[in-house]
Amino acid sequence: MSKHRRYRSAEKTLGTSPGTLTYVGADIDHATKIKRIEYNATEYHVDEIVKLSACRLPNEATSFVNWLDVDGIHEQKVVSVIGQQYQLHPLLLEDVMNTEQKPKIDLYDDTVVFVTLKMLHHSRQRQAIEAEHVSLVLGKNYLISFQEERTKDIFETVIERIKASSGKTRRNGADYLLYALMDVIVDHYLLITERIGEKMDELEEQIIREQANQQTLSILYTLKRELAFIRRTIYPLRDMIGVLLREESTLIDRSTLPYLHDLSDHINQIIESLDSYRELISGLMDVYYSIVSNRMNSVMKTLTIVSAIFIPLTFIAGIYGMNFDNMPELRTKTGYFWVLFSMVVIAVGEVIYFKRRGWM
Amino acid sequence: MSKHRRYRSAEKTLGTSPGTLTYVGADIDHATKIKRIEYNATEYHVDEIVKLSACRLPNEATSFVNWLDVDGIHEQKVVSVIGQQYQLHPLLLEDVMNTEQKPKIDLYDDTVVFVTLKMLHHSRQRQAIEAEHVSLVLGKNYLISFQEERTKDIFETVIERIKASSGKTRRNGADYLLYALMDVIVDHYLLITERIGEKMDELEEQIIREQANQQTLSILYTLKRELAFIRRTIYPLRDMIGVLLREESTLIDRSTLPYLHDLSDHINQIIESLDSYRELISGLMDVYYSIVSNRMNSVMKTLTIVSAIFIPLTFIAGIYGMNFDNMPELRTKTGYFWVLFSMVVIAVGEVIYFKRRGWM
Amino acid sequence: MSKHRRYRSAEKTLGTSPGTLTYVGADIDHATKIKRIEYNATEYHVDEIVKLSACRLPNEATSFVNWLDVDGIHEQKVVSVIGQQYQLHPLLLEDVMNTEQKPKIDLYDDTVVFVTLKMLHHSRQRQAIEAEHVSLVLGKNYLISFQEERTKDIFETVIERIKASSGKTRRNGADYLLYALMDVIVDHYLLITERIGEKMDELEEQIIREQANQQTLSILYTLKRELAFIRRTIYPLRDMIGVLLREESTLIDRSTLPYLHDLSDHINQIIESLDSYRELISGLMDVYYSIVSNRMNSVMKTLTIVSAIFIPLTFIAGIYGMNFDNMPELRTKTGYFWVLFSMVVIAVGEVIYFKRRGWM
Amino acid sequence: MSKHRRYRSAEKTLGTSPGTLTYVGADIDHATKIKRIEYNATEYHVDEIVKLSACRLPNEATSFVNWLDVDGIHEQKVVSVIGQQYQLHPLLLEDVMNTEQKPKIDLYDDTVVFVTLKMLHHSRQRQAIEAEHVSLVLGKNYLISFQEERTKDIFETVIERIKASSGKTRRNGADYLLYALMDVIVDHYLLITERIGEKMDELEEQIIREQANQQTLSILYTLKRELAFIRRTIYPLRDMIGVLLREESTLIDRSTLPYLHDLSDHINQIIESLDSYRELISGLMDVYYSIVSNRMNSVMKTLTIVSAIFIPLTFIAGIYGMNFDNMPELRTKTGYFWVLFSMVVIAVGEVIYFKRRGWM
Amino acid sequence: MSKHRRYRSAEKTLGTSPGTLTYVGADIDHATKIKRIEYNATEYHVDEIVKLSACRLPNEATSFVNWLDVDGIHEQKVVSVIGQQYQLHPLLLEDVMNTEQKPKIDLYDDTVVFVTLKMLHHSRQRQAIEAEHVSLVLGKNYLISFQEERTKDIFETVIERIKASSGKTRRNGADYLLYALMDVIVDHYLLITERIGEKMDELEEQIIREQANQQTLSILYTLKRELAFIRRTIYPLRDMIGVLLREESTLIDRSTLPYLHDLSDHINQIIESLDSYRELISGLMDVYYSIVSNRMNSVMKTLTIVSAIFIPLTFIAGIYGMNFDNMPELRTKTGYFWVLFSMVVIAVGEVIYFKRRGWM
Repeated sequence: MSKHRRYRSAEKTLGTSPGTLTYVGADIDHATKIKRIEYNATEYHVDEIVKLSACRLPNEATSFVNWLDVDGIHEQKVVSVIGQQYQLHPLLLEDVMNTEQKPKIDLYDDTVVFVTLKMLHHSRQRQAIEAEHVSLVLGKNYLISFQEERTKDIFETVIERIKASSGKTRRNGADYLLYALMDVIVDHYLLITERIGEKMDELEEQIIREQANQQTLSILYTLKRELAFIRRTIYPLRDMIGVLLREESTLIDRSTLPYLHDLSDHINQIIESLDSYRELISGLMDVYYSIVSNRMNSVMKTLTIVSAIFIPLTFIAGIYGMNFDNMPELRTKTGYFWVLFSMVVIAVGEVIYFKRRGWM
Repeated sequence: MSKHRRYRSAEKTLGTSPGTLTYVGADIDHATKIKRIEYNATEYHVDEIVKLSACRLPNEATSFVNWLDVDGIHEQKVVSVIGQQYQLHPLLLEDVMNTEQKPKIDLYDDTVVFVTLKMLHHSRQRQAIEAEHVSLVLGKNYLISFQEERTKDIFETVIERIKASSGKTRRNGADYLLYALMDVIVDHYLLITERIGEKMDELEEQIIREQANQQTLSILYTLKRELAFIRRTIYPLRDMIGVLLREESTLIDRSTLPYLHDLSDHINQIIESLDSYRELISGLMDVYYSIVSNRMNSVMKTLTIVSAIFIPLTFIAGIYGMNFDNMPELRTKTGYFWVLFSMVVIAVGEVIYFKRRGWM
Repeated sequence: MSKHRRYRSAEKTLGTSPGTLTYVGADIDHATKIKRIEYNATEYHVDEIVKLSACRLPNEATSFVNWLDVDGIHEQKVVSVIGQQYQLHPLLLEDVMNTEQKPKIDLYDDTVVFVTLKMLHHSRQRQAIEAEHVSLVLGKNYLISFQEERTKDIFETVIERIKASSGKTRRNGADYLLYALMDVIVDHYLLITERIGEKMDELEEQIIREQANQQTLSILYTLKRELAFIRRTIYPLRDMIGVLLREESTLIDRSTLPYLHDLSDHINQIIESLDSYRELISGLMDVYYSIVSNRMNSVMKTLTIVSAIFIPLTFIAGIYGMNFDNMPELRTKTGYFWVLFSMVVIAVGEVIYFKRRGWM
Repeated sequence: MSKHRRYRSAEKTLGTSPGTLTYVGADIDHATKIKRIEYNATEYHVDEIVKLSACRLPNEATSFVNWLDVDGIHEQKVVSVIGQQYQLHPLLLEDVMNTEQKPKIDLYDDTVVFVTLKMLHHSRQRQAIEAEHVSLVLGKNYLISFQEERTKDIFETVIERIKASSGKTRRNGADYLLYALMDVIVDHYLLITERIGEKMDELEEQIIREQANQQTLSILYTLKRELAFIRRTIYPLRDMIGVLLREESTLIDRSTLPYLHDLSDHINQIIESLDSYRELISGLMDVYYSIVSNRMNSVMKTLTIVSAIFIPLTFIAGIYGMNFDNMPELRTKTGYFWVLFSMVVIAVGEVIYFKRRGWM
Repeated sequence: MSKHRRYRSAEKTLGTSPGTLTYVGADIDHATKIKRIEYNATEYHVDEIVKLSACRLPNEATSFVNWLDVDGIHEQKVVSVIGQQYQLHPLLLEDVMNTEQKPKIDLYDDTVVFVTLKMLHHSRQRQAIEAEHVSLVLGKNYLISFQEERTKDIFETVIERIKASSGKTRRNGADYLLYALMDVIVDHYLLITERIGEKMDELEEQIIREQANQQTLSILYTLKRELAFIRRTIYPLRDMIGVLLREESTLIDRSTLPYLHDLSDHINQIIESLDSYRELISGLMDVYYSIVSNRMNSVMKTLTIVSAIFIPLTFIAGIYGMNFDNMPELRTKTGYFWVLFSMVVIAVGEVIYFKRRGWM
């Protein structure tokens, strides 16, 4: 996945002082889009933010949940200004911009919960799974979500839900919003996992019906690689939610815990599916090898049967093709027919022998 | 297992707010059947419930155990009404209806113990193992069991036992009933495990007697897949019962603990059997591959022997089949017989050579 | 092992209320034999017990150790009467009779230590390892040993030792007797393990000297299966003794602990041997496969050499066997000899080529 | 890696009393170079040290951080004098000189933190990864770094950063310097890891496009060996930093902990990459084997098709090459053409048969 | 290793009461040699002990360290007398004599530390690694070392060091002596490990240069077996020293702990080397299999090319060798040459085809 980017990242950061903000992701032309969504059980406002100075730490006593949805992390200035306004630690900002950062959770003294994870898409265009770097910063009454500026805002559905009804999301605090955003991402994991499951079923049918060919193994290999990639992306989430449940941060309300628990449950089910797919792949490989080896066997048997029948017969024909002056059989009237007859007998004998050994 | 259902499930739930009740299982025509069984050591009543409002949280002081046996989880209305009457958490109800839910246990504040697990049947019709989603809700004096509406009520035997005698089940509380229902399910696991054991024995005999064919490996693969599926279904039960034993919920009487311990024991034995079958399968695969490879060897030897004997002889015949004017041997009286004799000598020599090398 | 019994066991117990006493082992004709051995440092009595009512819980204050050696567990009546007389828990009695029960230890409130394990014999007749179900019940001043009624009493040697001298066994309590009986069983494990070691050495020599044949792999497979069976039987003992050492039951005297520790040591050594045999087996399989593959190579080389030498020569002979009117070479006087000479040159050239490539 | 050195090391140390200072690394001609860098937020001094006695334990109350950068560990005298001046434990000095020492951390009574690890270079010249032994001694206000005298000072970039600005390094204490030096080394690990990643991508492309040859497996093997070597070098660092974070030495300021945490994070990401490469290698091997086996199949098919078509035809030709006097077909006018025609029919039939079986 | 001894051991001990002293090692003719070395920082005495009664528990207040170096454990009387004089537990003496005992540590109530481990030699004569059973008993002011009477006293170098100087060993107590003796043994492990490393390098070169033959795999197998044997011997030492460090026995002075820590470090490095060798072996096996498979491929290609070229040509020759009266081509003047020409064309065509497919 994203091979060329990878090498650039090490060169970009080597030698720089630790804690420097550097964007190592794909080059992006668009400007960062920032939305502010403020809501409580009764009201909501959605603004597009144009001036960066408008991003401000909300009043502690406000009844509103203040959600800053930042779509684009490639502009160092944007990230650092937001960092200043919300008083975020420089290492946190570094992780927001570092698209190579693996998923993790950091608690900053009970004033900020920092979660970074990956959104997974299946790109039809490149026929590959793509990861988008997402960071979520939960503070008192506010939540900031950072995402790479790709095709569209992945949290659109949550904004729609906030607009549509005054349901669970609206009635709960910023911690529930954190859960809701993570839930959107985990739902996409499920989708990806099921797409792989479908592919597996196809391959299984292909292999078991012996329609597999040379490419099948390459596909299995690619699938295995994808599974490993997804697993590495999802696996850390299990521990991350474990930390949230265990640490009892004052930022997370007790009523949100069952939902996080439920999320952890879903992640476990996905990981279990991935692991079972992985096992199935190696099982399928065994079947595939066995089929290849059986084909080989079948080819060899054909060769052996044809050779074993005709080589001796050809030898007999060869004998009576010799030009010795004194070969009494050649002069007999029925010699030719006797030879033909004995050839048939030998051939039939061999066929019976091969049938008995189960080769035909 | 149940491939097509799987993909539908993600599409059904994606984008919906978490905690929404959605049934993702197989389509079912029948209406939900609900039975109420009330019993104590001296009396018992079994009613078929028609009006949902008749399901009510029993009086706390009652000496009766109140068991609600719900056969069918596809009607959202039924589940949500029962949920309201018994004051159950929405996430619990979601898990009752989600047939994709993996086995788990949840304790709700010492007022409810929620257990969800799978019943396994071997379907003769589809020649596959089928899982049925079962949920058990244990509260003060009551137990609610939910099962998918399939062919028949799987807890029939327990109802019969309650009717038949005033034995252990009748003398004990709802917690013992929870144990008894789980025990029925675990007994079915044992049956499934033994059926697989029988199949293994057959395959082993087939393979060791070298009667295995191309399909054998596919069967081994399917068996391996089934084993993995069963293991994934049964494995979580071990921890679940561990939780019940450890948490010391007030809903579980101390006298029930030895029985749960015993159940945990049975599960361990089943898991151990499954694991040993799994190992046997890979051992059998090794034997199978070795047999295939030996057959190949045997085919190749035949080819080699036939070729090595007749190709040189044919060459000799070929020499004396040449049409040179001046070939003195052709003119001798005994040339033909000397050639035949030398051919026999060569053939016999090769046969001896191959016998010595152990190829014949 | 004991395949047919296995399937019967599930059918026998399915549907019965848990805790019912059912014997699932092999059918046995003989009646149960019960011996009572009473001893202290100075005296001993050995009685054959005929009337079941004679089995009685000994006086708590007695200086004698009271050992009830029950040889046969197939009579439900015998087991349940002894259970009543000694006030044993029904689940304990169930485990005594259930020959399918895996080894385990149970502590019943510091009044009874219940140990169930397997005696392993190598049956010459059936050429297989057989397991005998043994249960030991340790109480205050008494010990009850249950064993399947097979060929002979496996604890005979301990009875002899008690009769012979007033040694360590006689000077110590029932807890030391428990250790002594377990020690007898563990010593038999060692014997079995060494027998397998001997078999392994034979096979290793056979394989490395390349005298292995088609059956070798089946034998390795059977050995692997036996190893897995023995390991499963012995492995739980490690934890069982760990429990005895850790729990500090008042029934186990401190002076007995070093002996239990020593026993645990022996078990660890046996397990280690089993594990190293297991590893050796897979190593041997690799060597075996390599030898098979080398043989194949050697067969193929022979075929290739014979074909590569004679097929071109036969072709040359074929050319001069053609019947064209105008073939000038045929008319020359020395043509035949030149052809023969060139054939020798080609053959020698090929032999040199194959020698250089290391194929001959 | 460094094979011949290895054997020398055991002979050098066998029999000597433990704790003797012995240099076991590569022979080196240059003298040890020692630099002293003293700095605080406002000033800095860099001196080249010529007289060993000038290395002295700094005043405890100094505001300067005192860094002794020792480039060369092959002179026993240098190491032991520094050891005396800074009052270091003899076992610590032994570890400084022992280039075979694996990475580890030792805390000496909260007065000294001793870290030894490996710098990894990719040597273009020898086409191999080379490890350089680095030791870091952190004390109150001072840090001593020991490195093998190879091509250049690996900590040059840190010295430059100290000279260039009064940034983070300058404002922090010796503990931050320890972090900064370790960070330089970990950044090099990342470079090495990415170089391997690049190599992997090349190989993957080669193998999947079926351009792999006999050497490919040797390269995969070497890569696997290198990966194992790097992993063994990097793995202990994880625990080492864990110790630093856990032990709460007074030498490590609280403000440095997030940086160490971040470093630990980087190491985890590198280890994860290494592990995923390792997995990919075995996946690639499977694909490679499958391709080799497919090629074999294809070779065998060609042989079989050619033989199966022409051997029977040659036999027919052989029959009519026999010299019997009485062979009626030979005398017919159209016999020859009928034979040719039947040969074509047979050949076409076989081609159709092989096409149907998918062999052509 | 030592196969025949193994089987004797079980027969010797089966049925005997536990705790009986039985020597199960190799038969030995020599008498046991006993040396007593007494030393402190200023003096030392070395005596050969002839009368067993001269072995006595030293005075508790003595400033001397009393070391009894027992060379030979095959005389039951010697071991039991020493046991009585030093008041050692019978199970300890049993372990001293049982050469089959695996390495372990036992603490007897803080009055005795008992360590048993294995000395490893590489026997040139038998071309195998041999284990010698060594036991060390540490008490207040004394240490008893037991070793099998083989070729020479393995602790000679330590005695020499005591005689030679008043260095570290002389200035420290019996606990340091325990460390010094274990250090001698661990140094020998390192030697053995490096010898295996050398062998590995040779094999690796052999295999990668494709000079491996049929025996190579047997050698790899033997090496693997040796590695497993060494690993099993060394592995327990890690935990043993862990116990010494953790238990804080009063017999071990705090100043000795860093040395034990260092020893544990060495053992870890050896185990790590062994594990990496093990991995390398399986990597080498893969390379070896691949080379074998490539050779097979190359053999098959040769066969296929020769057959594919000459079989069709022979067929053509066969056609014109037929004896039909009416074969017009035979009568043409240039027919023969046209046939020869077309044969050349076919042959060249096939060569081009095979070159294009990369088979030549």
